[in-house]
Amino acid sequence: MIVRPPQHWFVRLFTWHGSVMPQILFRLLLNLGMSLIALALYPWLGQHSAHLTLPPFSLLGIAIAIFLGFRNNASYSRYLEARKIWGSMMITSRSLIRQTLCAVNEAQSPKLAAKLLIAYAWTLNHSLRGSSARQDLQRSIDPSEADGILNKQSMANMLLLQVGQLYANLLRQGKVTELQYRNIDENLNELSRCLGGCERITNTPVPFAYSLILQRTVYLFCTLLPLALVADLHWLTPFVSVFISYTFLSWDAVAEEMEHPFGEGANHLALDAICTGIERNLLEMTEQTPLPPLKQVDRYYNLT
Amino acid sequence: MIVRPPQHWFVRLFTWHGSVMPQILFRLLLNLGMSLIALALYPWLGQHSAHLTLPPFSLLGIAIAIFLGFRNNASYSRYLEARKIWGSMMITSRSLIRQTLCAVNEAQSPKLAAKLLIAYAWTLNHSLRGSSARQDLQRSIDPSEADGILNKQSMANMLLLQVGQLYANLLRQGKVTELQYRNIDENLNELSRCLGGCERITNTPVPFAYSLILQRTVYLFCTLLPLALVADLHWLTPFVSVFISYTFLSWDAVAEEMEHPFGEGANHLALDAICTGIERNLLEMTEQTPLPPLKQVDRYYNLT
Amino acid sequence: MIVRPPQHWFVRLFTWHGSVMPQILFRLLLNLGMSLIALALYPWLGQHSAHLTLPPFSLLGIAIAIFLGFRNNASYSRYLEARKIWGSMMITSRSLIRQTLCAVNEAQSPKLAAKLLIAYAWTLNHSLRGSSARQDLQRSIDPSEADGILNKQSMANMLLLQVGQLYANLLRQGKVTELQYRNIDENLNELSRCLGGCERITNTPVPFAYSLILQRTVYLFCTLLPLALVADLHWLTPFVSVFISYTFLSWDAVAEEMEHPFGEGANHLALDAICTGIERNLLEMTEQTPLPPLKQVDRYYNLT
Amino acid sequence: MIVRPPQHWFVRLFTWHGSVMPQILFRLLLNLGMSLIALALYPWLGQHSAHLTLPPFSLLGIAIAIFLGFRNNASYSRYLEARKIWGSMMITSRSLIRQTLCAVNEAQSPKLAAKLLIAYAWTLNHSLRGSSARQDLQRSIDPSEADGILNKQSMANMLLLQVGQLYANLLRQGKVTELQYRNIDENLNELSRCLGGCERITNTPVPFAYSLILQRTVYLFCTLLPLALVADLHWLTPFVSVFISYTFLSWDAVAEEMEHPFGEGANHLALDAICTGIERNLLEMTEQTPLPPLKQVDRYYNLT
Amino acid sequence: MIVRPPQHWFVRLFTWHGSVMPQILFRLLLNLGMSLIALALYPWLGQHSAHLTLPPFSLLGIAIAIFLGFRNNASYSRYLEARKIWGSMMITSRSLIRQTLCAVNEAQSPKLAAKLLIAYAWTLNHSLRGSSARQDLQRSIDPSEADGILNKQSMANMLLLQVGQLYANLLRQGKVTELQYRNIDENLNELSRCLGGCERITNTPVPFAYSLILQRTVYLFCTLLPLALVADLHWLTPFVSVFISYTFLSWDAVAEEMEHPFGEGANHLALDAICTGIERNLLEMTEQTPLPPLKQVDRYYNLT
Repeated sequence: MIVRPPQHWFVRLFTWHGSVMPQILFRLLLNLGMSLIALALYPWLGQHSAHLTLPPFSLLGIAIAIFLGFRNNASYSRYLEARKIWGSMMITSRSLIRQTLCAVNEAQSPKLAAKLLIAYAWTLNHSLRGSSARQDLQRSIDPSEADGILNKQSMANMLLLQVGQLYANLLRQGKVTELQYRNIDENLNELSRCLGGCERITNTPVPFAYSLILQRTVYLFCTLLPLALVADLHWLTPFVSVFISYTFLSWDAVAEEMEHPFGEGANHLALDAICTGIERNLLEMTEQTPLPPLKQVDRYYNLT
Repeated sequence: MIVRPPQHWFVRLFTWHGSVMPQILFRLLLNLGMSLIALALYPWLGQHSAHLTLPPFSLLGIAIAIFLGFRNNASYSRYLEARKIWGSMMITSRSLIRQTLCAVNEAQSPKLAAKLLIAYAWTLNHSLRGSSARQDLQRSIDPSEADGILNKQSMANMLLLQVGQLYANLLRQGKVTELQYRNIDENLNELSRCLGGCERITNTPVPFAYSLILQRTVYLFCTLLPLALVADLHWLTPFVSVFISYTFLSWDAVAEEMEHPFGEGANHLALDAICTGIERNLLEMTEQTPLPPLKQVDRYYNLT
Repeated sequence: MIVRPPQHWFVRLFTWHGSVMPQILFRLLLNLGMSLIALALYPWLGQHSAHLTLPPFSLLGIAIAIFLGFRNNASYSRYLEARKIWGSMMITSRSLIRQTLCAVNEAQSPKLAAKLLIAYAWTLNHSLRGSSARQDLQRSIDPSEADGILNKQSMANMLLLQVGQLYANLLRQGKVTELQYRNIDENLNELSRCLGGCERITNTPVPFAYSLILQRTVYLFCTLLPLALVADLHWLTPFVSVFISYTFLSWDAVAEEMEHPFGEGANHLALDAICTGIERNLLEMTEQTPLPPLKQVDRYYNLT
Repeated sequence: MIVRPPQHWFVRLFTWHGSVMPQILFRLLLNLGMSLIALALYPWLGQHSAHLTLPPFSLLGIAIAIFLGFRNNASYSRYLEARKIWGSMMITSRSLIRQTLCAVNEAQSPKLAAKLLIAYAWTLNHSLRGSSARQDLQRSIDPSEADGILNKQSMANMLLLQVGQLYANLLRQGKVTELQYRNIDENLNELSRCLGGCERITNTPVPFAYSLILQRTVYLFCTLLPLALVADLHWLTPFVSVFISYTFLSWDAVAEEMEHPFGEGANHLALDAICTGIERNLLEMTEQTPLPPLKQVDRYYNLT
Repeated sequence: MIVRPPQHWFVRLFTWHGSVMPQILFRLLLNLGMSLIALALYPWLGQHSAHLTLPPFSLLGIAIAIFLGFRNNASYSRYLEARKIWGSMMITSRSLIRQTLCAVNEAQSPKLAAKLLIAYAWTLNHSLRGSSARQDLQRSIDPSEADGILNKQSMANMLLLQVGQLYANLLRQGKVTELQYRNIDENLNELSRCLGGCERITNTPVPFAYSLILQRTVYLFCTLLPLALVADLHWLTPFVSVFISYTFLSWDAVAEEMEHPFGEGANHLALDAICTGIERNLLEMTEQTPLPPLKQVDRYYNLT
């Protein structure tokens, strides 16, 4: 889902939805608790010359910030690649339909191709999100064929094979020439790359060691921080400690969220909206009606 | 718009236009006010040992700078990609016209193709900026056809379909050979990629969580900063505090502006100038007149 | 192997498997020992005004963190490229089979092509990991042919040559047209690129000087750190010192592990699972049975 | 121009040419003056407890260094892209001549094509540098044709159109086959991309806001720095202040210089040398003489 | 050369070969000397309140580390690109031979093509390293032809032209079809890109200003550092100072070495091994003997 939030900078400061607050609130409260403990223990610790000092934490904090920057890069580039793949789904589907319309003289094949391509997009969407593609498949293609597809191990791949066979038939019937078929085949390869790319992003997370090391160091850092701040800041410790923790925890949480771009969280890709866009475009190009309605953002500015 | 400012380093220091000053001035004034409050409260706070110290803010400031660097990377790469896409619009349009001129023997089809490609560029420009394409469309193509396009859901896409059909007709009439058509079709696919790329950049902002976290931490950081500086700097606090705030707020503001490269702000892309460039080039290649005048920068060195 | 660990943030803190703990535990213990020595020596050192101070170590630590960031970038991009290459193996194999199925009318050639491509994937896998490909080769192709391949210097390359000759024969027999052969040949080139890319990643590590400089400076830094912390932290030194050392050593260790993505460690690529995926997909497309079972993660959440 | 300087590290320390010293010397002197003022004012300021302290400047300096790193990345990648484009000019021209030599049986057309491609490279070079292409154009192509080109709005583009028409004629005369023409057409598209890429780099600088913010903050930082150093360093202030300023100002200056890679400064691309290289290669391939002499570095190790 | 060093982390700490120690040893000794001078002068300097303090050096050191990170990125990406180009040489040569073997029916042409491609690789290797290609050329191709090539200005380019003409002859003799020729021609273009890419990397270093600024600031920083450390560390100064200097100097030295990936230093590319690999692969594919022996690492773990 993509959140399109209030634009004014002041209102933004207090937005809840779309931020990563829900994920980190509990840990922020833990940090607040830790600050109060540090405040309470401080006089006693001072006697035993056993309080932490800030300089080692400065060094550590900056190192962690550098590593968080690295991890956000890694996660965000997954998000970006996922978005580009789905952009390419849109682009390639439209190009295929344009090529079909320009190549064949009758209206039926382009309509059929459009339906199959729409089914392909929805199937990939549902298989990435682990939901059932049945409803969207049956809307686009023949129910019996839909059942055949739903029984396969790799549904999207088998659907793409079917698209390929549609065009291979057009070639055999002489409706498209060999060279036009070649143009089309290249776009089918591109759809195959989109499928493979999505599978890769879903199946291979950022290596677990990265998240693990970062989460451990970030949590431990935030937990110990109040003990290092309390000597200088006294009763201001909770405010500053929660602020610093918020900065580090939220960057960790947003990297965690970006890592899986196909989810349905507030910062994930709006796959449903993209599929609807593909459906609307292909139907308009092949003059089929009715167009499905554009996806609208809900009251939380969300777009699934 | 692209600002081409005075080149001398000294004059630049005092340039207003093209900087992000307008966006952040109000917040800088807030920071100035906060500094004065800190200055006034300092004696009272000192008594209660409740002033902030700088070291935690150093740590926080450097972490925020690292994250601002990440966000500027993300935003600037959107700007860069948008510019490359429009560069490709120019390149591909010229290549298409070169291919048409080399393939067909008559002068009419290249002229028509040039007109359609010019209309395509302007339509995409206007749809990205949310303005009406009517005027520029009617200048380039037949008014009745222009109306047909203006009624469509995805105008640029339908126009590209029309370009495709122009070439499909040339193929059917035997004016271009199958292989020449293939060369052309690849460039049409590239135009389709340009369209899809622009839509992607417009529809999918940098995930909201990134801007949100950064803005919150930057604002809070700038607000609390004077309280941390005042113990050492006394009445120099406002100067240093506003300087540091300027550094952080302006990097945040410029990332915000770069994120939407198709706007009409001082640092956005000069789409009108690029479209005019495409129009001038294609008309010159097909020997049509008059060429539209080159876009000139206005008195603020702006180019829309 | 890819670890899919417990998802709850709290459980994660204590996960052993998939972290780089095994690699760095010994060095952490050394660091702990060094901390105790520093603690013991401190009173004596204090007399001779010969204790280290933290500020030079802060500077050094941040510099090292920046360089660790660079090295992790270099290592992780090798991992990422390796994953993309194997994604492309999957994509290209499926595209090839789709093209074969669409081109030829009989069922035998696609089945043979599928078998050869499966053998190709397994052979590359085994040659990257230095294990014997015999078992997996003989499962897919004729045992006598398998022996021929196993005697070659560059097994995967010779197998690819065999795939090429299969299609060249289909071309000579007129079962695929010249243009279809061209489509296929491009995908064979892509498989050749995958092979070359894997060889490049295996044969050329990140230049040794980088690992060397980083390991030396990281180890020396961690060893001297307790001496610099002890003046301020007294008996808290071991805790903070081990924490900081953990942060630096684990980033160094994970970079070391990412550098060789084809290994069988907890953060390496699950090549066996990918090959099984290719096998399942190609067999399903060509309607051959039985499908090999999906690879399941073991009790450590590992996937080879 | 590319500077190939003395290789010994000790001599390098005192090299003037090729460094950015000329651009920043005046500002370094300003900084020196400011240091002396700070030194003179220090006793008086000390009385009014109004001296700056270093910690806020440390924070600011590191933030600015991070942003300078970002800007140098942006500028250097423009330089790199420009170099790659000109590398592609060389590569594509050679490939085109190779294809021509292999395709046609006579010696005249390859010679003519070579001449046109040489003219294309020089024209693009001159139009990027704003110099007159007349001399180099007339050396390569017929003077009357050269005049026709020089009158055009987009000279390089019209020249490329002429190259296209040369090959279209060869196709019509049956000297190259349709498929060979396609191979050639792809390389013409690549030349078109080179042209568009160069235009993009020249026309679209790094957004002005980035340079503006950095220059302002760097200058102000360097100006205020002596006031913050003087309390600790006394009469060593000028040395350290100028050293730190040199580091920051030179990185800003080199980013400024890299941003416009087509200039004639010491760190700009050696376009003349590249064009000469293209000329020598194409003439040698088509056995034309005389070859123009290789560009030699001048006494400042410069290569235009 | 690629160094494959001892794998145990403890042994690595004391490895000399493959590190950049030889390049920086002298400067480290200078730094040691400077530390001793600082130690000797300290009492005298203390009297004149003229010792340096660490904080300005912390700021400077971190800024320099950020810039060193940038420069290592720039240098390493040159190394990486060079490696990818040579990987592509291997990939494309094998693909070409596969295409030749599949296209022609006789055994002679593939053998000849293999010989020419081997000669091409060795010639490019030698011209990049400035050594004589005579020996390796004569081993692969006819001595008289070898002499013709050795007299040319651009040997590799002329050799590639010869490869092109070999295939053009096969086309004229009808041994390869037009479409097969097109497949081949694309791979010849790729070889041409490899050649151009290598030339670009050799001819255009990282702009001199970057190395210059960094070397100056790194050296000056390391020289002044002992003066800033001595007040706190007394007789520990030499140890810490040399350690910090080692970190900075070695990163500078490794960037310097990476910048020229075609050299014969310990961290340069093993071009000879790659060429031998190409030779072995192509000979095996075309069933020619004897295969040249695999390159082995020498006693310093080096591979030329």
